[in-house]
Amino acid sequence: MTRVPDTSMYEQLFSHAARRVANQTSILVDLPNEKPDTISLAFGDADPSIFPSHQITSSVSGLLSENVDAVMNYAPADARLHALVTKRLEARGVAVDPAQLMITYGSSQVLGLLPQIFVEPGDTIIVEGPTFLGAVEYFAASGARIETIPVGPDGMDIDSLASCLADLKSRNIRPKFIYTIPTFQNPTGTLMPASARARLVALAAEYGVLVVEDDAYGDLHFKPHTAPSMLTLPGNEWVLHIGTFSKILAPGVRMAWAYGPPAVMKRLRAFKSESDCGTFVTRLVSHMAQDGWLERHIQMLRLHYATKSAAMVQAIAEHFPADVRTNVPEGGFFVYGYLPHDLPAVALNDVAIRHGASFLPGTTGYANGQGTHEMRIAFSFQTVPNCVKGIASIGSAMREMRHKSA
Amino acid sequence: MTRVPDTSMYEQLFSHAARRVANQTSILVDLPNEKPDTISLAFGDADPSIFPSHQITSSVSGLLSENVDAVMNYAPADARLHALVTKRLEARGVAVDPAQLMITYGSSQVLGLLPQIFVEPGDTIIVEGPTFLGAVEYFAASGARIETIPVGPDGMDIDSLASCLADLKSRNIRPKFIYTIPTFQNPTGTLMPASARARLVALAAEYGVLVVEDDAYGDLHFKPHTAPSMLTLPGNEWVLHIGTFSKILAPGVRMAWAYGPPAVMKRLRAFKSESDCGTFVTRLVSHMAQDGWLERHIQMLRLHYATKSAAMVQAIAEHFPADVRTNVPEGGFFVYGYLPHDLPAVALNDVAIRHGASFLPGTTGYANGQGTHEMRIAFSFQTVPNCVKGIASIGSAMREMRHKSA
Repeated sequence: MTRVPDTSMYEQLFSHAARRVANQTSILVDLPNEKPDTISLAFGDADPSIFPSHQITSSVSGLLSENVDAVMNYAPADARLHALVTKRLEARGVAVDPAQLMITYGSSQVLGLLPQIFVEPGDTIIVEGPTFLGAVEYFAASGARIETIPVGPDGMDIDSLASCLADLKSRNIRPKFIYTIPTFQNPTGTLMPASARARLVALAAEYGVLVVEDDAYGDLHFKPHTAPSMLTLPGNEWVLHIGTFSKILAPGVRMAWAYGPPAVMKRLRAFKSESDCGTFVTRLVSHMAQDGWLERHIQMLRLHYATKSAAMVQAIAEHFPADVRTNVPEGGFFVYGYLPHDLPAVALNDVAIRHGASFLPGTTGYANGQGTHEMRIAFSFQTVPNCVKGIASIGSAMREMRHKSA
Repeated sequence: MTRVPDTSMYEQLFSHAARRVANQTSILVDLPNEKPDTISLAFGDADPSIFPSHQITSSVSGLLSENVDAVMNYAPADARLHALVTKRLEARGVAVDPAQLMITYGSSQVLGLLPQIFVEPGDTIIVEGPTFLGAVEYFAASGARIETIPVGPDGMDIDSLASCLADLKSRNIRPKFIYTIPTFQNPTGTLMPASARARLVALAAEYGVLVVEDDAYGDLHFKPHTAPSMLTLPGNEWVLHIGTFSKILAPGVRMAWAYGPPAVMKRLRAFKSESDCGTFVTRLVSHMAQDGWLERHIQMLRLHYATKSAAMVQAIAEHFPADVRTNVPEGGFFVYGYLPHDLPAVALNDVAIRHGASFLPGTTGYANGQGTHEMRIAFSFQTVPNCVKGIASIGSAMREMRHKSA
């Protein structure tokens, strides 16, 4: 009596939004397969050699011996985690209202919720080009039109943004939000200066557009800087700030936060289908941060990633042709490269994998196919020797391509 | 220069769905505040005295010493957790296709996603009355019309369901899904027999409606039974099964699963905005289950909750007036009561709290205000002495109300 499922019968059941989103394909599907021994510089995984295993184990044991009911039963996210995030935001000058804070499963949860609460098909959103590939995927799934503002040495080009907003307004289009990673941008590693941040938030307030400030890498600076969080700038009632424990603790714990305007937080809460983020992991994170441990850990991470970044920058100077231009990052996980016309990134990555290393072609950071001659190189995951070896391999791939076409 | 936020400016930004869902209020808001010393029998929290603290601590320590990168970096949910769920479903006779399985943050995540992927405002869904209060909240937020099928001693009344489906069809209405908790139903504790399950799934296939089988309590039977999972019945291509580790391990870990038709799973995946459920917790759960530990733990839980249930049933026989009818549960966390006309549940609960104990009024389990003379009493969280004391307090509240009105 078991019958073959009739898929068309199901299609009629789904909501409009569900039918739309299911037809999306990942922008990563066309990447070549890396061999097992490839040194992958493609992804921004955290460095496993510095994961705080001991702190995790002792915190789990400590908190289970304190009050197992509070850690393991139904309950909202641990209040101490809210307090921890509040304290860290306050240290950056934010006047925190606890009602505007929400704990989430990684910042990707917020990026997935944003199009759900803001976008009807055909609506416009604004992103940096290039930007975080996950954000592009989440936003594109909503059926939004995506306007791309170029990223220069100082992050998003604010003159281009101003022109774009004016142009959209002249066509009666009010974009839903501007997504930016102002601090150690993914993928370019650039830092947006204070003056540009102030202009951006003022423009957002003028046009009535939300600014989404993704601050995934803000704690990981290699030298001090004074660029403020957009939450502290005039016009901050138009700012939604996203932060995460993925880069400063571990991605595997999936803990992040969002802080923003009450009307936005109300919708994010309503669409966040889980009632909470689990007492166990939220309390684990706050327990680990006790007695200043987290701030000490972050100081160590800054030194650690600065060292890896410097080693990679030096290897690039040695091994890449002079006409490959790269950004020197001041923080974060990535070096970004601009390739000459005879070295298209996708073809180069194929050759590089044969030489033993891989990177991420720039097209993955754009919604509309740009970035064909750009490359993201992550120094975050591999050891220093592997970073150097990987860059040498990519350099030799560049020379081989030129030799063949010469 | 900081301006007062103009909320109306935000309102225009939101999607239709976001404007709708934010106006929902919780059905729990009108419950009276319990005093700190109230014995709460209202909620189905797990019993903290039997949380496996030692197994958690030793598993964390074991898995971090094995491979910290695999546990703490970016990665999909642990494959071993998929294997564990697969094995448990196969043990119940399900022919598992791994592509149809998804790991989620608690079963409430699935309940929150269901209206998003199925419901446009005005669409119809079918639930049991009473049913799980969280499901009612999630479903109502979508703007769905909710049809309620009464629950009798054998669970959902299938004759009523058949009439409802026929009536809807005569009005050209195809409901999106039927939500049922067939095994130790929340809140009634009833077990739907095999024959009723077969009829339900056959009706779903006949009318082209998805059946959502929420199996939160399925493992916690007090004596053996033979009712099969709907996944094993003819017509199972119309069944979405939801299971959870909340009741057999701990709610605080937020781990659950969904298994169902490929077209449905594709949409659930697309709307689940987090990329995965975290390597740390998914691996922790599978690590804890190793070497048969989880199955032994479940056997202990069955005995433990059966003992508490029996104590509560006996206390009810001693302390409640004879015209208060209660279900005797064969598994799960709850006793359900039907109150005579002179004992409305909300007023009784107010008096009971003065007497030192609380329960959950039946209205919380209905979408449309029914259940005014019903009560859910949880034996899951409190100790046996507190369960008995709580029932005695509620019984004395019943007598006080009658004395006053007499």
